[in-house]
Amino acid sequence: MSINVAILGATGAVGQRFIQLLENHPWFTVAEVVASERSAGKTYIEATNWVLTTDMPERVANLTVKPLDGILDSTLVFSALPSSVAKDVEAKFAAEGHYVCSNASAYRMEPDVPILLPEVNAGHIHLLARQQEERGWKGGIITNSNCTSSPLVMALAPLRKFQPEALSVVSMQAISGAGYPGVPSLDIMDNVIPFIKNEEEKLGLEPAKMLGAYANGQVTPLSMTVSAACNRVPVIDSHLINVTIRFAQDVDKADLYTAWENFVGPDPVPSLPTAPEKPVIVRYEDNRPQPRRDRDAGGGMSTVVGRLRPADAMGGWQFLALAHNTIRGAAGCSILNAELLKAEGYLDSVTEVVATKA
Amino acid sequence: MSINVAILGATGAVGQRFIQLLENHPWFTVAEVVASERSAGKTYIEATNWVLTTDMPERVANLTVKPLDGILDSTLVFSALPSSVAKDVEAKFAAEGHYVCSNASAYRMEPDVPILLPEVNAGHIHLLARQQEERGWKGGIITNSNCTSSPLVMALAPLRKFQPEALSVVSMQAISGAGYPGVPSLDIMDNVIPFIKNEEEKLGLEPAKMLGAYANGQVTPLSMTVSAACNRVPVIDSHLINVTIRFAQDVDKADLYTAWENFVGPDPVPSLPTAPEKPVIVRYEDNRPQPRRDRDAGGGMSTVVGRLRPADAMGGWQFLALAHNTIRGAAGCSILNAELLKAEGYLDSVTEVVATKA
Amino acid sequence: MSINVAILGATGAVGQRFIQLLENHPWFTVAEVVASERSAGKTYIEATNWVLTTDMPERVANLTVKPLDGILDSTLVFSALPSSVAKDVEAKFAAEGHYVCSNASAYRMEPDVPILLPEVNAGHIHLLARQQEERGWKGGIITNSNCTSSPLVMALAPLRKFQPEALSVVSMQAISGAGYPGVPSLDIMDNVIPFIKNEEEKLGLEPAKMLGAYANGQVTPLSMTVSAACNRVPVIDSHLINVTIRFAQDVDKADLYTAWENFVGPDPVPSLPTAPEKPVIVRYEDNRPQPRRDRDAGGGMSTVVGRLRPADAMGGWQFLALAHNTIRGAAGCSILNAELLKAEGYLDSVTEVVATKA
Amino acid sequence: MSINVAILGATGAVGQRFIQLLENHPWFTVAEVVASERSAGKTYIEATNWVLTTDMPERVANLTVKPLDGILDSTLVFSALPSSVAKDVEAKFAAEGHYVCSNASAYRMEPDVPILLPEVNAGHIHLLARQQEERGWKGGIITNSNCTSSPLVMALAPLRKFQPEALSVVSMQAISGAGYPGVPSLDIMDNVIPFIKNEEEKLGLEPAKMLGAYANGQVTPLSMTVSAACNRVPVIDSHLINVTIRFAQDVDKADLYTAWENFVGPDPVPSLPTAPEKPVIVRYEDNRPQPRRDRDAGGGMSTVVGRLRPADAMGGWQFLALAHNTIRGAAGCSILNAELLKAEGYLDSVTEVVATKA
Repeated sequence: MSINVAILGATGAVGQRFIQLLENHPWFTVAEVVASERSAGKTYIEATNWVLTTDMPERVANLTVKPLDGILDSTLVFSALPSSVAKDVEAKFAAEGHYVCSNASAYRMEPDVPILLPEVNAGHIHLLARQQEERGWKGGIITNSNCTSSPLVMALAPLRKFQPEALSVVSMQAISGAGYPGVPSLDIMDNVIPFIKNEEEKLGLEPAKMLGAYANGQVTPLSMTVSAACNRVPVIDSHLINVTIRFAQDVDKADLYTAWENFVGPDPVPSLPTAPEKPVIVRYEDNRPQPRRDRDAGGGMSTVVGRLRPADAMGGWQFLALAHNTIRGAAGCSILNAELLKAEGYLDSVTEVVATKA
Repeated sequence: MSINVAILGATGAVGQRFIQLLENHPWFTVAEVVASERSAGKTYIEATNWVLTTDMPERVANLTVKPLDGILDSTLVFSALPSSVAKDVEAKFAAEGHYVCSNASAYRMEPDVPILLPEVNAGHIHLLARQQEERGWKGGIITNSNCTSSPLVMALAPLRKFQPEALSVVSMQAISGAGYPGVPSLDIMDNVIPFIKNEEEKLGLEPAKMLGAYANGQVTPLSMTVSAACNRVPVIDSHLINVTIRFAQDVDKADLYTAWENFVGPDPVPSLPTAPEKPVIVRYEDNRPQPRRDRDAGGGMSTVVGRLRPADAMGGWQFLALAHNTIRGAAGCSILNAELLKAEGYLDSVTEVVATKA
Repeated sequence: MSINVAILGATGAVGQRFIQLLENHPWFTVAEVVASERSAGKTYIEATNWVLTTDMPERVANLTVKPLDGILDSTLVFSALPSSVAKDVEAKFAAEGHYVCSNASAYRMEPDVPILLPEVNAGHIHLLARQQEERGWKGGIITNSNCTSSPLVMALAPLRKFQPEALSVVSMQAISGAGYPGVPSLDIMDNVIPFIKNEEEKLGLEPAKMLGAYANGQVTPLSMTVSAACNRVPVIDSHLINVTIRFAQDVDKADLYTAWENFVGPDPVPSLPTAPEKPVIVRYEDNRPQPRRDRDAGGGMSTVVGRLRPADAMGGWQFLALAHNTIRGAAGCSILNAELLKAEGYLDSVTEVVATKA
Repeated sequence: MSINVAILGATGAVGQRFIQLLENHPWFTVAEVVASERSAGKTYIEATNWVLTTDMPERVANLTVKPLDGILDSTLVFSALPSSVAKDVEAKFAAEGHYVCSNASAYRMEPDVPILLPEVNAGHIHLLARQQEERGWKGGIITNSNCTSSPLVMALAPLRKFQPEALSVVSMQAISGAGYPGVPSLDIMDNVIPFIKNEEEKLGLEPAKMLGAYANGQVTPLSMTVSAACNRVPVIDSHLINVTIRFAQDVDKADLYTAWENFVGPDPVPSLPTAPEKPVIVRYEDNRPQPRRDRDAGGGMSTVVGRLRPADAMGGWQFLALAHNTIRGAAGCSILNAELLKAEGYLDSVTEVVATKA
C-alpha cells in the first residue's frame, strides 16, 4: 500500500534527485512525471539527460511525461520547477486539491506558506489551513528552503534559546546547486566565483522566517541581523558555510556543544522514514566538516557542524556547518516534508484511494 | 651592472618562484643556489623537481647547489627556507653581513624585524639599524608576510585613516600556499579543507604589526580585534579573502572606493622595478575578483578588491580581496623588499663590488 | 559465526578500504590490524589518517595496531603492504600457515602464485598446492592484479575464444591508484601526468598470465603482443582504459557484444557474497562508461564496457573498459579471492576454531 | 602602418581569443567586431561575457558590434563562427573580396579550400586561385584545422618521409575546446567524458588532407589508415594526444628524434611574427608533455612531443603530442595563416589603403 506521487519538472537535475530518492521509498511511488511542453509525450528516458551517478530506475524510465497544464491523479505532488514557472503551476495544482511540496522559491516568502524544515519548525505546517481558508485552495503548498539556508537553520535551531541577534555567513557552495547544465566548467575549474545571484538576499530572509514562532496562522520571524557572502567553489555536492554569530545571552562553548548534541526534532519527525538519526552531527576534529567527506552523513540528511571557537571581532562565536545541497537542501527535504504531511493526516483520504486501486 | 644574489631553499616551490621571477630582473642576478645537504653538490637541475609552468632558466640549471652551512659571496640573500630551518640559518647569514629577504615566518614577529609590504610600511625598514645595534649583526633580516596577510594588509592600508577596530576574515586559499608536494590531491579534489595549521593565528598578529606606526626603532601595532577562518580550496594560485570590517569612524561607500582608487606607495616604492602600476585594483563587477581571472593582475603584484557592501551584522562593511600567493604573497614581495633595500642604500657597497667584477 | 581476519598495512589507503568493505561482511570480521613499527601499539584510530568518505567503523577504531613481525591469530590475512615490505612479510606469514590475500605486486609474477580474478581464472587457485609443496609453506599467497589490469582482463576474458593476438591500451587512471598522500595536487589539478612508474610494464605481463590456462601446477600465459600507455587524470576513483585489439579469428560486433552480455564466472563464483550480479556491464550510449557515473556499478565490482567500434589502424576493434580501482582493482578483489578460498575449503579448519570461540 | 581586420563571431570564446592575440600585433589591428543580431549595435563590452584571464583590450571594448549581414571595410577577416552559420556568411564575404581566415569546419573538406598549418603545408595556400577561378570569388577562404588535428599533423609532418601507413590516436582534450559555456561542470569534474561529437571523424579526414601534396590546384591526401578515440578531461587548455603509428619504412628512435629536432617550416614561415621559434619541441623526460606545464611553449604556438617508444602491438611507435587548443589549435593558427597570406602578397592592395588612411 503506497501513495502515488507526481514530480513536476521531473527531467531536470532536482527532478532526477526526487526520482532517485523516492526509488524504494516505503510510502510513496512515483506514478507521474511532469515537464514542459518540449518533453511531454515522450517517455521519461527519452526526455531526460540523466546526470546522477546511479542508474535511472527502470520503472520510471518507461513512464510517459505529462504536460504541466494537464490533470494529475496524484494528490501528492513534488515540484522541482524553476521559480518563474512554479508561480502559476503550483497555485493551479494547489487550488485543484493537490498538496505541492515545492523546492522552488516562488512561494517561500508568502506569509501563509511555510518553509518547512521538520526538525526545526514542524508546526508551521498549520499555515496550510490559512491557505485553504484565504485562498480557497482545496490543497496547498509547502516549501523547503534555499539549499544554503538549510544547514544554517539546522545549526541555529538548537541555539535559538541563546537568542541569536547578529549573524554573518560566508558560504562555499557546490556546483550542483546551480542545476544542470548550470555552472560552465570554464568558469569554475581552478577558480572560485564569489557571487550567486539572489542567494545572499535569501539568506537574509528565509532563516529568520524558518526559525520564527507559529501562532494563530501566523509566523513571526526571529529578529536577527544577517550579513551573507556566497561563493561557488569547485565541489560537486554540499554547501559548507562559515557562521559567525552573536547571542544576546552569555554562553560558553559547552552550552553550544550540548545544545547541538541533544537536538532532536519534535514527534513524529524522528520516526519519519527519511529523517536522519541525528539531524545535527558534531565533529570535533580541527579540519571537519569537509564537503566530500561529510556530505553523505545521515544519508545526506544530517547537518554536520564543527570548528566552534570564539569570534572576538563580532563578540560571539564562529563555526562551520555543512549539508548536502541536493538532498537535505532540496529533494530530500521535500520528501521529509511530505512524510510529515502524511503523518499529520493531510493525505489520509489519498491512502484509501490508492489502497482501493491496489 | 647587476647585483649577485643567493637563494636559500632554492630547490623548493618558493625557491623556484624566486628563480623564475629573478630571470631578466634589471638589478639582480641569481648567482648562488643554496639548499639542504641532500641537494648540495648537485647541479640545480639535478637537485630540483621543477614544478612551475615556465622552463627552468638555463643559466641557473647549471649552477652547483651550495650547502646551507657554507660561505656565500652574495650580500643579498633571498630565503625560501622552511621556518624551522630559517631560525638558525638566517641569523648566521645576517650576522656575517648578508641582508636576508626572507619568506619564512621565523623572524616575522620579532620586535626588531620588519614585515615589509613596501607600499604600506616602507619605513619599517629602519628596524634594520636596531638589529645591527642590539644583535651585533653586520647585515640583517627583513621578512615578507604570510601569503594571506598580504592581500588583507594591502586592502586595509588605504582604509587605515578610517580607524579599523574589528575585522573578520574568511579565506579561500590556493593549494600552492602549502608548497610542494603540499596538499595531497586526495584531500582537495571535489573538496574544501576548512583548516590551515597556524594560519589563523598569523592573521591575528601579522596585519596589526604591518599596519603599525614606526618610530624610534619601534613598531606599534595597530589596535584591532581580528577573527579569522582559513580554508583550502581547489585553486592552484591566489588567495581570495572575504573581509568584514568595522571602523571607528563613519564612512560611506564612496569614501572607501576613493581611498582604494587613490592609493599609492610612498617614494621611491612606485618606481621600483617590481612594483605594480596600481597596488590596489578595484573591480566593480558583481562577481570579481576571481582567483583564475584576477591573480595575474599587475604581474601578480596587485591586490584586487571588489564587492564592497554594508555588513550589518558587524555594523560595518564587507568586501573581497585577492592576491597571488606565490608572487605578491611570497617571492615577488621579497624581491620588491630587496629593491627597496637597494633604493635605500643598504646595498651600495655591494654594487661597487659587482661592478668591479664585471 | 564469522572468520576472524587480519589486515597488513591497515593504516594506509588500501588498508582502510579493506576495513571499510569488510564492515558488515557476512563471513569475515576484522580482528587484527597490523602496521609498521611507527603505528604498532597505538589504537587504530590514533594511528590512522582516515581518508575515506564513510566513517571509520567504531569497533575497528579501538583495536590496537599489531607489529608486522609479531604473531597473528587469524588464518586469513589481507595484505595492503607496499611491495618492498610485502616480499618478506607475506612469505613469513604464508610459511607459518596463514593464507595471505595480497594486493601487493611482490609475488604476482612468481610462477607458483596466482593473480586471481575469480570470474576469469578461479582455477589458478590450485597453484597454492605447489607453493606448499615446493616452498614448504603451511599456508600460501594469492594476489590480485594491478588495478589497471583488472578492467582489462575482465573485458578480455569473454573474448578469449576469439584469440586476441595484439592489444594496445591507453589508460586514464584515478589519483587514488597512487595511494595516500600519493599524487600532489600541484601536479594533477588542471593537468594530466602521462606516466605512471612501472605501470606499463605490469600491463605487459599480468594480463597474459591472468588469461593463461592452468594445468598441472602451471599457468601458461596467453600469447599476445601488448603495448600500453598509462596516464594519470584528475579523477578520484576508477580507471578508464581505451583498448584496441586484434583477434586471430574473424569476429563481428554482435559476436563481441554477445560474449560480454553472456559472461559469467564459473561456479561457485557467482554466488560468493562480494561477486557482482554482472561482472561485465555493457553500456550502449555514445559517451559511456564515465568514471564518476559508472565506477559504482555492481557495488564497484563490475567492469563497464562501451563504445565498441572497428579500429582499422590495427585491423581490429576498439572499446572502453572501466572499473573501480580501489574496489575491484584492489581490496574488493582480494576479498572476493578470500571468499573463493573459503568456498574451496582452504579455510575449513579455521571456521571451526572461530565457531568454538564464539 | 597596420592592416585593419574584422572578427566574425567576435563575442564567443574563440572570437575573444582572436582579440586577445591580436592586441599588440605588429601587422594587424582589430577594427571591426561582428556578431549575431542579438549583439549587433551594442558596444563590444556590453555584448560580451569575457571569459579570458587577461583584461579585454580597452580600444576593442568600445567598438560597436556590426551585424553578420552588413558590409565590412576590412579585407582581412577572421572567422570564429559556428560552422552552421559559417557556411553562408563566409562564402558571402569571400565572394565580395574579403580573405576569410576561418576557424570553422564548414569549408575544411572542400577540395578547393586549404586547411593551412603553415610550417607543414604553406603551399596549399595556392588553392585560393582555384576558389577565385571556379567559384568566382574575389577573395577566398583559408581554414585552420580542428584543434586536435593540429598537434597530430605538426608531430607527423617531420615524419612524413618515413611513410606513415597506420595511425591510432587517443586524445585527452581540454574543456576550452568546447567553447563557452561549453562543458557543464557537473559533467566533467572528477570525470572523463569519452566522446566528443564529430571529433573522431575529423581526425580521420583532416590530417590526411593537411599532410597531402599540392600540385596543379589539387591536394592529394596522404594515404594512411586512421583510428581515433577522443576524450574530454578536466583540463582547461591544451589537448594531449597519444599517437601510435606504423611506417612503411624501417626507422629507429634516433631517426624520429632527429626528424623532429630539425623540423622547420619553409620560408617565409619561420620569420612570420606569430611563428614559434621551434614548431616542434621534444621533451625527453619520462613524464612530459603535460597540459598545464607545456601548453604555453612557444607562446602556445609550439607542439610538444615526448615519450617516444616502440609500440609492438601495432608494429610501430608510440609517442605523445600536445598543443594549446585555443592558440595553435584555433585563433593563433588563423593569425599565422593570415600572416602567410600577407607575406605571399594577397593583401598587398590592402596595405596601401590602410596606409592612405593613416
